Amino acid sequence: MEMARIGATPAGGCNRQALTDEDRQGRKLFESWCAAQNCTIEHDQMGNIFARREGAEPGLPPVLVGSHLDTQPTGGKFDGVYGVLAGLEVIESLNEHRIRTDHPIEVVVWTNEEGARFSPAMIGSGVFAGTFELEYGLSRVSRNGATLGSELERIGYAGSRPCHHYPIKAAFEAHIEQGPILEDQGIQIGIVTGVQGMRWYDLELIGEAVHAGPTPMTSRRDPVRAMHTIMAQVYKWADDFSPWARVTFGDARFEPGSRNTVPERVIVTLDIRHPDETTLAAMEDRLQEIVSTAATESNITGIVHREWQSAAIQFDDRCIRMIAESATDLGFSTMHLVSGAGHDSVYVSKIAPTAMIFVPCKGGVSHNESESAERNDLAAGCDVLLNAVLRMAGCAAQDQTTSN
Amino acid sequence: MEMARIGATPAGGCNRQALTDEDRQGRKLFESWCAAQNCTIEHDQMGNIFARREGAEPGLPPVLVGSHLDTQPTGGKFDGVYGVLAGLEVIESLNEHRIRTDHPIEVVVWTNEEGARFSPAMIGSGVFAGTFELEYGLSRVSRNGATLGSELERIGYAGSRPCHHYPIKAAFEAHIEQGPILEDQGIQIGIVTGVQGMRWYDLELIGEAVHAGPTPMTSRRDPVRAMHTIMAQVYKWADDFSPWARVTFGDARFEPGSRNTVPERVIVTLDIRHPDETTLAAMEDRLQEIVSTAATESNITGIVHREWQSAAIQFDDRCIRMIAESATDLGFSTMHLVSGAGHDSVYVSKIAPTAMIFVPCKGGVSHNESESAERNDLAAGCDVLLNAVLRMAGCAAQDQTTSN
Repeated sequence: MEMARIGATPAGGCNRQALTDEDRQGRKLFESWCAAQNCTIEHDQMGNIFARREGAEPGLPPVLVGSHLDTQPTGGKFDGVYGVLAGLEVIESLNEHRIRTDHPIEVVVWTNEEGARFSPAMIGSGVFAGTFELEYGLSRVSRNGATLGSELERIGYAGSRPCHHYPIKAAFEAHIEQGPILEDQGIQIGIVTGVQGMRWYDLELIGEAVHAGPTPMTSRRDPVRAMHTIMAQVYKWADDFSPWARVTFGDARFEPGSRNTVPERVIVTLDIRHPDETTLAAMEDRLQEIVSTAATESNITGIVHREWQSAAIQFDDRCIRMIAESATDLGFSTMHLVSGAGHDSVYVSKIAPTAMIFVPCKGGVSHNESESAERNDLAAGCDVLLNAVLRMAGCAAQDQTTSN
Repeated sequence: MEMARIGATPAGGCNRQALTDEDRQGRKLFESWCAAQNCTIEHDQMGNIFARREGAEPGLPPVLVGSHLDTQPTGGKFDGVYGVLAGLEVIESLNEHRIRTDHPIEVVVWTNEEGARFSPAMIGSGVFAGTFELEYGLSRVSRNGATLGSELERIGYAGSRPCHHYPIKAAFEAHIEQGPILEDQGIQIGIVTGVQGMRWYDLELIGEAVHAGPTPMTSRRDPVRAMHTIMAQVYKWADDFSPWARVTFGDARFEPGSRNTVPERVIVTLDIRHPDETTLAAMEDRLQEIVSTAATESNITGIVHREWQSAAIQFDDRCIRMIAESATDLGFSTMHLVSGAGHDSVYVSKIAPTAMIFVPCKGGVSHNESESAERNDLAAGCDVLLNAVLRMAGCAAQDQTTSN
């Protein structure tokens, strides 16, 4: 829980947003732990951290384990951090038992997974996988106007290693579920077969700023009026595409934002998710219609900006099988499920065989300071991860070097 | 238009919010003009400015004319400024024609009329009239955390004169209508008989911050869902209480405000207005019910904070008649109307006979950078103001002092 003290919030959560001073502290703490386990540490141009434990045969591609250390503004102690520390735990266990793997193992910390400070999310793994250009990644701008590249420089994590994928044997990411399904079913290990498709929009609604008093209601061009009718129809998708559709209006900005002036402009964010790409596309078509109709009705201009998208992902069959076999061998209860959240594994899966391990979290709550998980479940996830990594990395012989 | 250059915005409006550096510049410019007209200038403890032209008999109470110089963040060139400069114009005309009035005349600039930087609005005139305590006024806090009192000190306008009313013969405020009625009817002078009642609320909706992906829609406690149903019902009042009801959602804040997290808390402002206090009270009762029902439906907590209210106001009959007679004598078309906007005259009317003069503004648009008015109409308003002031202040004799 030492990591959770960095950026700790009064309500028991963490505010350790990407490339802040708190993120630097978290990274330094992680690296001190890696150094104590004799890992070599490298940073790439996006600030992704690679802590490497060599294998018996240096030429072989590594097995990647890890996740992210950045959090939401009012995030919890487990989202991301668990996957990073579970990776480190794998290395500690191997060191403790003097096990030498054939393939090297690399614990990775991806930069700006959350997307809370810099949009889009998962930008570190996205550039690594070639989904985004390096230049695009470095030029992302935070709310306070700082670029991702300048913030990397500022906290000393603008590494020299090229941010580009290389041959990887397999990649595993352990994570809390961030939803209530495992807890509801009383299951300890979720074998994640893929990730929902998701699309992010900014809905920009432009009317006319007029005085709240003298202007008759009928002569207003009020973007808030359009906004609430759009919301009403989008929320209906939860029923129309039940049970898998997810719609979230996470943020909104009214301009000029004065209580006695009809706003000239409203920008509201929309996050939609569904496991089926065709359904997602249909939702987007409907969104265009809904915004267009609402804008006409309120005599305003409505624009749908698609900010980001991530197609539905199917993970690697062999990785999935290795997780399932490991969990079953260890005697844990398991179920297969699809992740509703995006993860760095989405991008990593494009360039390496990948799968994920979920453990239950309390009440299914995440992106919240009260995020919590049971010690037993976290340990179970670590055990499954270790076993899956061992199967994939190959365990040729017990390490003789330290027993000489 | 020299005043409009201070805080000028690219879109042709003004951003000269209360007690900013721009407000100080505007005040200094106004005072330089007053000094050139041989006025004595005093500041009170709330930073209200009084520029006085002595009358023939110094013991008599003054006639007050004026308004405010602060603007909305994206305000126009005329709102408030017109009334201040029309007051100065009265003094210039009297000086030019060497007219000595029996009663003194004071041009007043009220602090923070807009309420955009410090809530509530009209705080300078409110403290002056005794509606608010001085301590309350000085302790108002801006969005960036500065108090009104500290900002007064910073810009050098924390005056020594007590902010308290004294005997006033009458008060007149000229203003653009800020609505479309005069323009629509082709009328030059609006004789304002009173002001709508208005109430300001913060609606606070508290749910639970959870991840936008994995959390099923049915297990969310989403305050945005409650917000849009509240909005839908409140907008219906525009029809239920047509044509006089006004409802405006001017600002909203989503917390934590991250696009892939269901907000934990939404705070949205609501401004409601109606000329009848009983109807306003009924609207407030309905609001409580609507918020309560919507909160229950979305399994969240909903709180209605009443931030401010201003009862419907009836202006002084004699002042109204003097404006009407002046306008008629000058040959302008007139109509009586009720102001939908709050003005400093609301508070001043509590301690002195008061009325207002409206002139048309282009398209009825105000609180907007494109705010505009016709030169002829502005001049007509000044003429009516001068005549009404003269009737009220008494014009004993032509001034002999300067012709000696």
